Amino acid sequence: MPDLNTVVAEIAAEMLARPDRGDVATYIPELARVDPKHFGIAVIDAQGEIAAAGDAETPFSIQSVSKVFTLTLALGKVGDRLWRRVGREPSGSPFNSIVQLEREEGVPRNPFINAGAIAVTDVILSGHKPREALGEILRFMQFLADDETISIDKAVAESEARTGFRNAALANYMKSFGVIENPVDYTLGVYFHHCAITMTCRQLAMAGRFLAHRGKNPTTGHSVVTPERARRINAVMLTCGHYDGSGDFAYRVGLPGKSGVGGGIFAVAPGKASIAVWAPGLDAAGNSHLGRIALETLAKRMGWSIFGA
Amino acid sequence: MPDLNTVVAEIAAEMLARPDRGDVATYIPELARVDPKHFGIAVIDAQGEIAAAGDAETPFSIQSVSKVFTLTLALGKVGDRLWRRVGREPSGSPFNSIVQLEREEGVPRNPFINAGAIAVTDVILSGHKPREALGEILRFMQFLADDETISIDKAVAESEARTGFRNAALANYMKSFGVIENPVDYTLGVYFHHCAITMTCRQLAMAGRFLAHRGKNPTTGHSVVTPERARRINAVMLTCGHYDGSGDFAYRVGLPGKSGVGGGIFAVAPGKASIAVWAPGLDAAGNSHLGRIALETLAKRMGWSIFGA
Amino acid sequence: MPDLNTVVAEIAAEMLARPDRGDVATYIPELARVDPKHFGIAVIDAQGEIAAAGDAETPFSIQSVSKVFTLTLALGKVGDRLWRRVGREPSGSPFNSIVQLEREEGVPRNPFINAGAIAVTDVILSGHKPREALGEILRFMQFLADDETISIDKAVAESEARTGFRNAALANYMKSFGVIENPVDYTLGVYFHHCAITMTCRQLAMAGRFLAHRGKNPTTGHSVVTPERARRINAVMLTCGHYDGSGDFAYRVGLPGKSGVGGGIFAVAPGKASIAVWAPGLDAAGNSHLGRIALETLAKRMGWSIFGA
Amino acid sequence: MPDLNTVVAEIAAEMLARPDRGDVATYIPELARVDPKHFGIAVIDAQGEIAAAGDAETPFSIQSVSKVFTLTLALGKVGDRLWRRVGREPSGSPFNSIVQLEREEGVPRNPFINAGAIAVTDVILSGHKPREALGEILRFMQFLADDETISIDKAVAESEARTGFRNAALANYMKSFGVIENPVDYTLGVYFHHCAITMTCRQLAMAGRFLAHRGKNPTTGHSVVTPERARRINAVMLTCGHYDGSGDFAYRVGLPGKSGVGGGIFAVAPGKASIAVWAPGLDAAGNSHLGRIALETLAKRMGWSIFGA
Repeated sequence: MPDLNTVVAEIAAEMLARPDRGDVATYIPELARVDPKHFGIAVIDAQGEIAAAGDAETPFSIQSVSKVFTLTLALGKVGDRLWRRVGREPSGSPFNSIVQLEREEGVPRNPFINAGAIAVTDVILSGHKPREALGEILRFMQFLADDETISIDKAVAESEARTGFRNAALANYMKSFGVIENPVDYTLGVYFHHCAITMTCRQLAMAGRFLAHRGKNPTTGHSVVTPERARRINAVMLTCGHYDGSGDFAYRVGLPGKSGVGGGIFAVAPGKASIAVWAPGLDAAGNSHLGRIALETLAKRMGWSIFGA
Repeated sequence: MPDLNTVVAEIAAEMLARPDRGDVATYIPELARVDPKHFGIAVIDAQGEIAAAGDAETPFSIQSVSKVFTLTLALGKVGDRLWRRVGREPSGSPFNSIVQLEREEGVPRNPFINAGAIAVTDVILSGHKPREALGEILRFMQFLADDETISIDKAVAESEARTGFRNAALANYMKSFGVIENPVDYTLGVYFHHCAITMTCRQLAMAGRFLAHRGKNPTTGHSVVTPERARRINAVMLTCGHYDGSGDFAYRVGLPGKSGVGGGIFAVAPGKASIAVWAPGLDAAGNSHLGRIALETLAKRMGWSIFGA
Repeated sequence: MPDLNTVVAEIAAEMLARPDRGDVATYIPELARVDPKHFGIAVIDAQGEIAAAGDAETPFSIQSVSKVFTLTLALGKVGDRLWRRVGREPSGSPFNSIVQLEREEGVPRNPFINAGAIAVTDVILSGHKPREALGEILRFMQFLADDETISIDKAVAESEARTGFRNAALANYMKSFGVIENPVDYTLGVYFHHCAITMTCRQLAMAGRFLAHRGKNPTTGHSVVTPERARRINAVMLTCGHYDGSGDFAYRVGLPGKSGVGGGIFAVAPGKASIAVWAPGLDAAGNSHLGRIALETLAKRMGWSIFGA
Repeated sequence: MPDLNTVVAEIAAEMLARPDRGDVATYIPELARVDPKHFGIAVIDAQGEIAAAGDAETPFSIQSVSKVFTLTLALGKVGDRLWRRVGREPSGSPFNSIVQLEREEGVPRNPFINAGAIAVTDVILSGHKPREALGEILRFMQFLADDETISIDKAVAESEARTGFRNAALANYMKSFGVIENPVDYTLGVYFHHCAITMTCRQLAMAGRFLAHRGKNPTTGHSVVTPERARRINAVMLTCGHYDGSGDFAYRVGLPGKSGVGGGIFAVAPGKASIAVWAPGLDAAGNSHLGRIALETLAKRMGWSIFGA
């Protein structure tokens, strides 16, 4: 078994040396001006040991990675009734497609495409004011990462709201089918803000440990979800976590993971490690280009693929 | 760790007692007249021990399960060039949809929907006569299962050919884009025949051992594919193996698998076991109803989910 | 040549006697409570003679019939540049479909499906405040009909706004592609209000005379549009005026026309007459059931089909 | 009223002088090698006078223009029952799209897209051998044009059959839904052959006179169809005759018409004239580029638009 610290350091060095970096998201200025040269990685093993390298301590906008945690919260709130409001099948189409919503009468295919994540946010919001729901999400992230400094980048959230017409279309469309219960503006407001949470690779890997360890924080022993629910969230990440590149990610990397357009990817090696990588340049499917390559290398060198050593 | 033989026997007893069985496929008479009361299961562990119960020795039409093996053969023949002819993303639509082909100019989304499997068959056929290509596929199955009695049910193949207008549409459509190289009738002929291979659960679990064990037959040590290719075939099974029920199968069962409309499912617990179940009744997505439940139970009791123990 | 007054009176009598009436639109209470027993018809010939029968003087919500007049206004404002923002092909899908917008990058297929009419409204709005734009539309209707009593039903407009999530989805979706220039709420506000204009059959037939007579009011000689533009608006009505029932309307009736979910249909017999019918019950495609039958009968008895006497 | 002979001669001169000609169809060699410099026009008025110019006597492949006549034949055979097998709504998609067939369960939208014309051919074929059905179609054309020299270009038909995988896909797809009754190869054979009929502009204008004159040959008085059926066929031509350019053709030209990829367009000025133009270069929607311009000019100069003088 290779040494994790060595592997992580090697990967960071290899990634930082690569000329191919993909393209940084440009639809809001806050993301557009991030330097594509960044690369960070943090891996936390079952014993709580952290192997980190590169820009592992630089905060970035987690964007859609937040959807793993809002899914966890919403399942905690309404349990399997959640699946009446959102499916769990891969979408076979880009992250912001509205076509599928028409075919399936407003029910999004899974909780990780934008429509599905908006529907999940709506579930968390129900019965609360937007400010309260957002506070609950943020406190959940702080609790999981054991770090109260995690915060929301208001400028990012406001830029998203200002330009988020596609998401407004998705939300209004679902509302027309009764899939969204709260006022569209409220639900979108909470959605834009939780996507604007800023974290470092280390914080993100900390926050996701429960998914690698049967639903528990392996250090404190605190249970976040049941073992079955942890497995199931991992399964949804594997089949749906990378938009229309989910099949390719499973094929190449072989780990459940969730990407964000900020360039972050959170991934899980069940029983072994919680992983976060960050490289701002994206590939054609909207997933971090170097992030995916780093995870592919890590899984191969450590023998962590869930599809066989 | 529970005893595998006991678990398998219990599952068979539970499945045979259930009243809910799904609906047997009716589009050809040979499938329509199969008794929905059948249930078989065979599990072969890393040591080559077989745990079997129910109708594990009754031959059934493997149908689309054959696509795992034709994919393996085609990758052996042309390597990664295969992915120029077929994608590896979940389809987000039923098994025989033609809509996706139009959007993506004749390139099927993955090798397990009908269009993709026809394209894979075309790759195997190239440079051969249909009879030779079919012989190669059948001998590969016999070799993998170490059983020369495995055969093709001609009556099934002929019924499929007689009623297979949808598949003929898919093949002609791909041909119009140059994705099919051979005469459409030849490619379809080989396709219909390899779907008509008849096997027992035991034979099927035997044939698939290499996918559970780093590409090798764990008993003989013979290498069928590289470890990386075995992992990758498993990944495609996980994301695409159950048509538009692939996400649900991953969520519930947590094992790579491939189903057929004959009611068979082949599944893999990487490093642990090769599994075949058979129950002819299908669910709404066209996958074996009891087969899926049996695998879900098996994975849970044995702790075999790839998404965490 | 039969006498127009006689024919119109006969048609009204026949329609009022029919038991089949279709279903009144129910998505807002103001439309839901309209009595399906209403039937009105008004036909104004080239000499300005009015043949009217039934409830020809009862005001009703013209809904999408207003789109003929906003199209006329927008063409007057920006000319053929309008066609960069909206197409003029039949949609092959229901009136509120969003699928087509994704395939064609936010450009609606024609000015008579909801998305297209919203884009047309946006053109009229540009450079104005919503109140001014709405005033311009209303005054145009009053001018064309030579009747300053024509007004907007505020309750209808407010109900539409309260439940119009599908239209909000369409507008936001187009906005995401830059097809909508003004704030979405402003454009939708003007749209909902012009659809809530209330008119009688007589007023509507008066307002549309210019389309039957080479762009001119045949009585005053006042030119509204050029003869070519009148022909072209008629052509768009013929191919796109009845949503996904446009082909059937052309086949059965053979006159350019535009329907609204309030049960009104405006139609044109070029060179001969301007026609308005009203019957609140709708068919499966969302067009007035008896209105279509009345127009079919009228065209046949008068020999007015544009496809041959 | 301008003189028809003068107008026709002027149009031919103008068209022959234009540098823009569109692109000749290249999918079969017989069409690919036609000289794009050809332009022919023939107009036959109500008195049977022929105005012709350019290459009006040069035979060309009528291709999809034949669909007007097979529709007429099929309606004669089964009447309105035809509409159970094919719709009459514009398709909103290209001529050979298969997407719509999936959404509407194998029923093509109209008789002028390829799928619809294949279904119409299947109706004509039923109860006959392919050779007989084809003979019936050819004799109908010869009878209508009063010219026994009209023939089928076998080389064109064979090229179509050899490369017609898309049409084979459409036919097999419809067959899978039971919309095609005869063996797919038989129906396609007849279809490819009637599309390969070769005619001159003069012959084509002769053949279509009945559609301009209430269903009758105005010279002989012989009735081909009822006046109502003639109107209805004209209506289908207007809404569906130019694939996804039908709306634009109605908007610009204002006459019912049907185009073919050979560059021919047949059009009708109801009560006034039967028209055929031919210019081999096509526009983006697959319709004759100069043919459409010639018809637009003709309709304008003669005041023949059905949407108003």
